Amino acid sequence: MNEASLLARVPASRRGLVLGIGDDAAIYRPKADEDLTFTTDLFIENVHFRARGPGAISAEQAGYRAMARSLSDAAAMGARPRFCLVSLSLAPWTTVRWFDGFYRGLLGLADRYGCTLAGGDLSHTPQVVCDVMVCGSVPKGKALRRDGARVGDVLYVSGSLGGWRHRPMPVPRLDVARKILGRATAAMDVSDGLALDLHRMCLASGVAARLDVTPPVLRGATLEEALHAGEDYELLYTAPKGVRMPGHRLGTIEKGPPGRITLLGKPLSPHGYDHFESRARS
Amino acid sequence: MNEASLLARVPASRRGLVLGIGDDAAIYRPKADEDLTFTTDLFIENVHFRARGPGAISAEQAGYRAMARSLSDAAAMGARPRFCLVSLSLAPWTTVRWFDGFYRGLLGLADRYGCTLAGGDLSHTPQVVCDVMVCGSVPKGKALRRDGARVGDVLYVSGSLGGWRHRPMPVPRLDVARKILGRATAAMDVSDGLALDLHRMCLASGVAARLDVTPPVLRGATLEEALHAGEDYELLYTAPKGVRMPGHRLGTIEKGPPGRITLLGKPLSPHGYDHFESRARS
Repeated sequence: MNEASLLARVPASRRGLVLGIGDDAAIYRPKADEDLTFTTDLFIENVHFRARGPGAISAEQAGYRAMARSLSDAAAMGARPRFCLVSLSLAPWTTVRWFDGFYRGLLGLADRYGCTLAGGDLSHTPQVVCDVMVCGSVPKGKALRRDGARVGDVLYVSGSLGGWRHRPMPVPRLDVARKILGRATAAMDVSDGLALDLHRMCLASGVAARLDVTPPVLRGATLEEALHAGEDYELLYTAPKGVRMPGHRLGTIEKGPPGRITLLGKPLSPHGYDHFESRARS
Repeated sequence: MNEASLLARVPASRRGLVLGIGDDAAIYRPKADEDLTFTTDLFIENVHFRARGPGAISAEQAGYRAMARSLSDAAAMGARPRFCLVSLSLAPWTTVRWFDGFYRGLLGLADRYGCTLAGGDLSHTPQVVCDVMVCGSVPKGKALRRDGARVGDVLYVSGSLGGWRHRPMPVPRLDVARKILGRATAAMDVSDGLALDLHRMCLASGVAARLDVTPPVLRGATLEEALHAGEDYELLYTAPKGVRMPGHRLGTIEKGPPGRITLLGKPLSPHGYDHFESRARS
């Protein structure tokens, strides 16, 4: 099949867009008083997922997870997803059935959050490569950044951690994002493990953090996985003491060398899941 | 090297952005009365370019061409580039020197048109895969679409054609885009050959086209290449008779079966360069 006939199989949708798929570019008309957030995430066979052999996931699951990665980044900014661009490079082993299943998983999740497919590109490589760009909108000046944590703030996580092995279809926390928007001082998603991501938030904010409790752990996962495994997609956020917030209270932001984290009084190493250093994992 | 240390090598730039690289997403604050255009294009080793062996291009040329593809799509909409997201998957053979050269070529071209690097992703694959998303802005309602050609309009091309083999560093026609904005009825870029792209414009507009002259041909290229080769990045556009336009006059938009094209009175087959059907063609 050629590109046009493959793309014809993808359901059309134009909600919120002046112009969707089919021209040189999509056109979006911004609303007054909105900031737009932009994120893009690669999802690659044999790096982020396996499509064949042991540990293989289905085409639908692959599409779901490719979209979940980018939606989670929108959630981490407190943004409401608006539209996405999806570049997909197919491998020689992929079939039309796999292609359809992949888009079904991807668009099913996108649709749930009002994220319209506005365009993309299609090509071929020895293994499947997908790049998903999500544009979200947030009231002007209200985006949740990772550099806003202040000394004395309380630190929260939105749910249990342990890595994608224990939750293959993680839900992007757009519901939590809506609740904490306007109240949180900083937020990010846990994509490379709590220890590494909290370290990054502290570095960006120029603060240290003290974890007074161990984080909630996914059923079947270890504390080690909850601290250092990747792709949880729970949100990590801070708010001033006294502000009522959803989620699990983990500890406090404190003065100290930027990026330093302690867990129950002991230093916590900021190692985590760096996709680039971990070819062998997953 | 890990992802953080590789990304630290990419020059930072924030022009026009509330927040650039380093958070979960970039933040862009739209201006009143602007529409935003969005396009993304894959640029893949052994599909769109060769990095080693016969026909190899340099790292800088590869970066340049990866960016040129998406900037050309912005030009085709009449848009001014604002920012880009770059996802790059490196191959085992790539070196830090290649990485630096690639970004030098890519950002050098982006900078020339005020297109700020706002984010992206980094991973690894057996061959280099790059996906470049460009956001452009255009006055509200003024974007140049491909569905606006009307019977009686004159058809133009911005320059000589013949395919990338004869012009390895094509210039995205953002200068022409500025001149025809507000005057052209339809526009697109010639990325898959004049015959196929004009066919697409005619299909989108529900019209036919008559080429009264052969298109201008690049030095060293054949007429066949000018009609059917890919990645020219010249603009193809229409305007009502009597409106002064830059470029070469090719013919007229006429009534007829949508998509039909004639050249000097004979039917012109809309075959072109479909990346998906042409694995063998570099």
